[in-house]
Amino acid sequence: MNIALLGFGVVCGGVYDILKNMPEYNVKKILIRNPAKLTMDCMTLDFADIENDSEIDLVVEAIGGLHPAREYILAALNAKKHVVTANKAVVAAYFDEFVAAAKENGVKFMVEATSGGGIPWIKNLQRVGRIDKVTKLHGIMNGTSNFILSAMTCEGKDFSDVLKTAQELGYAEADPSADIDGDDVRNKCAISAAIAFDTKVDVNSIMQAGIRHITKADIDWFKENGLVCKLFATAVCDKDNFDAVVEPVLLGCDTVEANVPKNYNITCLYGETIGEVKLYGQGAGGLPTGNAIVQDIIDINTNNAFDISFGKEMNKAEIIRGKYYIRIPAGLENYTEFIGDITEKTFTLGDDTVVVTTETTPAKIHSLLDANKDKAVFVARYF
Amino acid sequence: MNIALLGFGVVCGGVYDILKNMPEYNVKKILIRNPAKLTMDCMTLDFADIENDSEIDLVVEAIGGLHPAREYILAALNAKKHVVTANKAVVAAYFDEFVAAAKENGVKFMVEATSGGGIPWIKNLQRVGRIDKVTKLHGIMNGTSNFILSAMTCEGKDFSDVLKTAQELGYAEADPSADIDGDDVRNKCAISAAIAFDTKVDVNSIMQAGIRHITKADIDWFKENGLVCKLFATAVCDKDNFDAVVEPVLLGCDTVEANVPKNYNITCLYGETIGEVKLYGQGAGGLPTGNAIVQDIIDINTNNAFDISFGKEMNKAEIIRGKYYIRIPAGLENYTEFIGDITEKTFTLGDDTVVVTTETTPAKIHSLLDANKDKAVFVARYF
Repeated sequence: MNIALLGFGVVCGGVYDILKNMPEYNVKKILIRNPAKLTMDCMTLDFADIENDSEIDLVVEAIGGLHPAREYILAALNAKKHVVTANKAVVAAYFDEFVAAAKENGVKFMVEATSGGGIPWIKNLQRVGRIDKVTKLHGIMNGTSNFILSAMTCEGKDFSDVLKTAQELGYAEADPSADIDGDDVRNKCAISAAIAFDTKVDVNSIMQAGIRHITKADIDWFKENGLVCKLFATAVCDKDNFDAVVEPVLLGCDTVEANVPKNYNITCLYGETIGEVKLYGQGAGGLPTGNAIVQDIIDINTNNAFDISFGKEMNKAEIIRGKYYIRIPAGLENYTEFIGDITEKTFTLGDDTVVVTTETTPAKIHSLLDANKDKAVFVARYF
Repeated sequence: MNIALLGFGVVCGGVYDILKNMPEYNVKKILIRNPAKLTMDCMTLDFADIENDSEIDLVVEAIGGLHPAREYILAALNAKKHVVTANKAVVAAYFDEFVAAAKENGVKFMVEATSGGGIPWIKNLQRVGRIDKVTKLHGIMNGTSNFILSAMTCEGKDFSDVLKTAQELGYAEADPSADIDGDDVRNKCAISAAIAFDTKVDVNSIMQAGIRHITKADIDWFKENGLVCKLFATAVCDKDNFDAVVEPVLLGCDTVEANVPKNYNITCLYGETIGEVKLYGQGAGGLPTGNAIVQDIIDINTNNAFDISFGKEMNKAEIIRGKYYIRIPAGLENYTEFIGDITEKTFTLGDDTVVVTTETTPAKIHSLLDANKDKAVFVARYF
């Protein structure tokens, strides 16, 4: 099988290293952007060299971002090449367009590497779906934020110190917002829900809250109360509707999810006959993510790849409900307008006010966040 | 696809209930033993009715035990019918014989349901093995013993009280020895190691120790030291050798495995590029185990089933090493003959003596156990 790689960073580097030992798979061309890095004969700066090469059966896309990734993927599919991608942003944004183009051209479009890194999450979701309706999923799907939350919990450090360590270790970007504000998890949540519920999911309809404003005082209070905070993707469905949200949650300290350490990920599903299944592993990194891509490649080459159909028409509805912990910084007085009617108890934490709500919807809580984007409000749902 | 079920207990009942909703799969015959239970037209008391029915493509075996399960499986394979089994004892004992018969007859022999119940463990081990050499695996593979250990840890109860509760809830048999002494886990360990390392494994070569002699005093000491006890299967390999053992282990209380609750199972592997992967779910029960069987059936019917080859010649060697906690009941004086030279520290626990050893092999520890089978010695390896 002749393969082209789009990009040659961490992920495609991992794919290249794994495929080196698999003689059935030949990396014929590699698209790179920087002329100074044209170090191998198979490298090219021109995507047309790949698109027009009829010997290339499969294109791996890991350049990231929306453009030109979208155009490359569509061009490859329209040239009747299978596409395997690790690019969660472009898949979350254009999933149904890619699925339709793959179907039209009789080729496969595979996304294992977009969600959960090395965890065989997408494949197992699809396999469970052969028998069960998957009615719930959740998980820790971002290693950077889990590294930060774990270090804050285990070492008692404050957010900014831990973020600095994560940046020094290469776990967090110089601009960490995609990881800590939930954008990255939201893309993975949209992709996972679309696969699990077999329906189109508008990523922009998924509310998100991140961990930017969590403090040592929050963590200390959670600990005193036997709780651990994790950043979760959550999605559920009933007969005709689904719901999905990305936000911090509070778990009992003796749960499996609460004890996921460092930059590891965990993904969890509930199916009617199989019950609860949880999958744990490396959520990022060149070799684990490369492994996920190569699994997709092998599945295509051995006729083990599943088609994605989005066979169900489902609507987004308010299904997820929960109690929330909300820490409101001193000076933010308008909060009672938003959550005054769902206050179960209120107490002070340093100069701040904490409200624990009665059971409510994410929409209610996120309306408070939206109205106070410039304030350091921190929320977490009791899971 | 026409299917025959051997047995109609909890597991085949689960298979039947799941297949009811899948029109592609027809349960044509069911073998039962008790004439008083011949309640459906498709039921028979005579295996020959199934063996000689050329319309039956696939036989599900869940009668348990070694005989006549072995004879039925071989007869079905020789009649060119695929076989899917949940019977860990017969697979652990005759795995290579079944694999050879399946190969000779051009049919599939599938064992997902033998190990880990609803957890998609065998399939994912095989998938990881397409890319990586799996060098280590471990896990909690018996729900009954995990229920007992979890309840002792969380509720502070003693072994006999918790065992009684487990029996009342139907989690433990009247004779619980297969679950609490490690026999059940040993079968699953042998099957998992054979799949993971792609080699024949003699189940009788795997040393086993169980949880029959654990006491509240042990659990209290573990808690004081931040440890949790679980019954583990462990298997490792190097280039030409493998090792496997079933015994209680001591884990840090903030590890994922330590927090596996109730009767749940977890299975863990390490692969060179994928890193650590852990899979959690229901390790038993009619619907989860039935789900595992139906996944095998679908894989066969859709040409997604993997062959098992045992392609590698490997020898069993002493690779696993660790420190041990050993509680020696009062009056057992010969223990120093066995472990005097590996004593790191000794202390008393009630009337008993506890030895914590330096790093050693399971063989060394199990020689002490073998010489004192009638004594309530409890051992656990620091994991």
